[in-house]
Amino acid sequence: MTLDQTHDPALRSWVAAAHEPGADFTPQNLPLGLISAGDGPRPAVAIGDRAVDLRRARDGGLLATLPREVAAALDAPVLNDLLALGRPALRAVRAGVSALVRADTLEGQRAAKDAALAPRLAEVEVLLPMEIGDYTDFYASIDHATNVGSMFRPDNPLLPNYRHVPIGYHGRASSIVPSGVAVRRPQGQTAATPQGPPTFGASARIDYELEVGAVIGAGNALGTAVPIARAEEHLAGLVLVNDWSARDIQAWEYQPLGPFLAKNFATTVSPWIVTLDALEPFRTAARPRAGDEPAPLPYLSDQTDVARGGFDLTLEVWLRTARMREAGTPAERLSQGTFTRMYWTLAQMLTHHASNGCNLRPGDLIASGTVSGPERGARGCLLELAWRGTEPVVLSNGEERAFIADGDEVILRGWGERAGAARVGFGECRAVLLPTGA
Amino acid sequence: MTLDQTHDPALRSWVAAAHEPGADFTPQNLPLGLISAGDGPRPAVAIGDRAVDLRRARDGGLLATLPREVAAALDAPVLNDLLALGRPALRAVRAGVSALVRADTLEGQRAAKDAALAPRLAEVEVLLPMEIGDYTDFYASIDHATNVGSMFRPDNPLLPNYRHVPIGYHGRASSIVPSGVAVRRPQGQTAATPQGPPTFGASARIDYELEVGAVIGAGNALGTAVPIARAEEHLAGLVLVNDWSARDIQAWEYQPLGPFLAKNFATTVSPWIVTLDALEPFRTAARPRAGDEPAPLPYLSDQTDVARGGFDLTLEVWLRTARMREAGTPAERLSQGTFTRMYWTLAQMLTHHASNGCNLRPGDLIASGTVSGPERGARGCLLELAWRGTEPVVLSNGEERAFIADGDEVILRGWGERAGAARVGFGECRAVLLPTGA
Repeated sequence: MTLDQTHDPALRSWVAAAHEPGADFTPQNLPLGLISAGDGPRPAVAIGDRAVDLRRARDGGLLATLPREVAAALDAPVLNDLLALGRPALRAVRAGVSALVRADTLEGQRAAKDAALAPRLAEVEVLLPMEIGDYTDFYASIDHATNVGSMFRPDNPLLPNYRHVPIGYHGRASSIVPSGVAVRRPQGQTAATPQGPPTFGASARIDYELEVGAVIGAGNALGTAVPIARAEEHLAGLVLVNDWSARDIQAWEYQPLGPFLAKNFATTVSPWIVTLDALEPFRTAARPRAGDEPAPLPYLSDQTDVARGGFDLTLEVWLRTARMREAGTPAERLSQGTFTRMYWTLAQMLTHHASNGCNLRPGDLIASGTVSGPERGARGCLLELAWRGTEPVVLSNGEERAFIADGDEVILRGWGERAGAARVGFGECRAVLLPTGA
Repeated sequence: MTLDQTHDPALRSWVAAAHEPGADFTPQNLPLGLISAGDGPRPAVAIGDRAVDLRRARDGGLLATLPREVAAALDAPVLNDLLALGRPALRAVRAGVSALVRADTLEGQRAAKDAALAPRLAEVEVLLPMEIGDYTDFYASIDHATNVGSMFRPDNPLLPNYRHVPIGYHGRASSIVPSGVAVRRPQGQTAATPQGPPTFGASARIDYELEVGAVIGAGNALGTAVPIARAEEHLAGLVLVNDWSARDIQAWEYQPLGPFLAKNFATTVSPWIVTLDALEPFRTAARPRAGDEPAPLPYLSDQTDVARGGFDLTLEVWLRTARMREAGTPAERLSQGTFTRMYWTLAQMLTHHASNGCNLRPGDLIASGTVSGPERGARGCLLELAWRGTEPVVLSNGEERAFIADGDEVILRGWGERAGAARVGFGECRAVLLPTGA
């Protein structure tokens, strides 16, 4: 994959909002999603403040360059069929839509005149774009693993396996919701001491986790591995993920089989899949191994992955409390970090995942785990930022947060930006925490 | 739910094989599944050596008593739509099919004459009956948890949380396969010591786990709990589950987030859902709490569940090695146990699962965890039976097994049987282990 004209930073669209400063959905981005204007789900591409309805564009003859099977996949009520066709299919959609949103093409000039072709995002429902068969959550930020480990094991923050094996576990697919869906504070068992006894009630330690999620495109058959050199052929694109966590439930339940009810009450994702092709300008080297860090085992080693397995993305967490909303105060930034410091690349995570023959299916979600950096301001969850509740975050209005309060809205943002390229962003991944229900 | 005429042990079917000694699919069982005779998946009910094609039966006017939405659900290519309608719908199917397979009803007499209505099981493909959105694996046998814990922590076999919280974790849905599909020995990272370093290669410690799986019928909405008194309304029925495990991969990877690649290479299930209604004669008290065991927290406490939350089922593991197959020797029994000793009932597992608002969807699978008993002969996995490889099982032909060898076929069997009731069984849950692929 190299840069082509769809990445040209000079490219102008007839969608004016795509050119506003800080716009995530630039003409060079073209993320895939699913919208509904009351007439059922329709595949779409976001640009500026609009979503291009791909089925309508196809039916109007505006995507004539699409291979037949790609055009047919747009009839499905979710993106899985399209994702299953792999990266060449997504690239064909990208090229077709790029021509369509440009002001200087015939397709673009026709499209600009079709009022119904690209409804405003504010006027449609933006749905979860795919059926997620399985959701896997990794733990690939060594800074996060070290921070969390040092809270619980000060002398031995990183377990011996960490530097060798991409640690991951299965999460819950059913409770993944798109940005904007409110999340309810869970009840559960918690205990004041590791010995118990527990009580049952509302969790008092709700946290967010800032993560990047990779959406699987073409799958692999059960019983077959995916060589690291081919791993990215199976990655359709990325989204932001807030892996909501109840730290008190987690502490009591997680031994010996890992987190369960502490995590599966909700996971919020940004609903626009930013394709790997769109992220091409932001590819960067994988985090280099330090002298005392072992080389990855051969099945996880690939020179191309070393050279460009990383993604230079800026990631932020913002918070807006109920009081801030009432006062009309905007959200406040809690952290800003980068996705370049992950110990494992997404390709390594995918190859590891399939190394035992586990089959990944189109639409599956592989999340990175909390993305943290070594600086305090780059910590990707409140557990770290407020250091297990001991150093509460103080907001501008005087409110303090050791954990998330009812009514708080958590907003994740992320984007790539560099000289010579157009900005490519994820849009928002946001959710309000509601109080425990009856 | 009480016994009705569908349970009558005197009931005679025109399917002779349903009356053979040891038949699992008796006229009182009527488990639900999905068959294909090359013409796509079709909902079916197993009886004896046959499967009643429900769509054909409906279209032939033989299931006229079905409510319209139940009849319509039979058009789906999986059972999820039917399961979603809940237990009353399954009961309607049960009553309709019961009349159809009886020798003494008009429907039965008509059905017996329709050769295509009930093809032989040997002549159709028996598929995975439902799309499994999420697969959860519990750890509800205290004997298993104690055995495994004592191998790794002799002084403290049971962790403090065990007696309070139904421990569970999310498994992999994509790699669940029906009985008969061969399983490939996974590769993975293993390490000779807990400190590493690891090497990558074929697992040398493949194990089975004998489990019972509960299939979700009607789901619950995200954010809503399921009271224990209503938990069984959400349970459609049970299957057998072999939760294949690679113990060497598990030992190295499982801290701190639980088992991952050690489990997700394959899970085998018996493909016929034995409904809770069919299991009614085998309901029994939940395992009583011993004096030093805490009472369950109120959200997990229910008098009906105490009185009849258990299932009196016999569960067995059989093994047939490649040498036994070549010699024409039948499979040999490795263990026989009971499902009555589980520390948590299925209702408690389900209610716990949803207690934080986690949504369960029709077709989801909740497995019990390895079912073991206190006696050696009732241990439900080889890790226990051969005590971590130190006491290999010696087979009649002199072969020894500390773990499963390539070419071994593992067969799980399970049934209820008691005086005054017809036997109700699961059929087999079997799979051969193939060597690691290229």
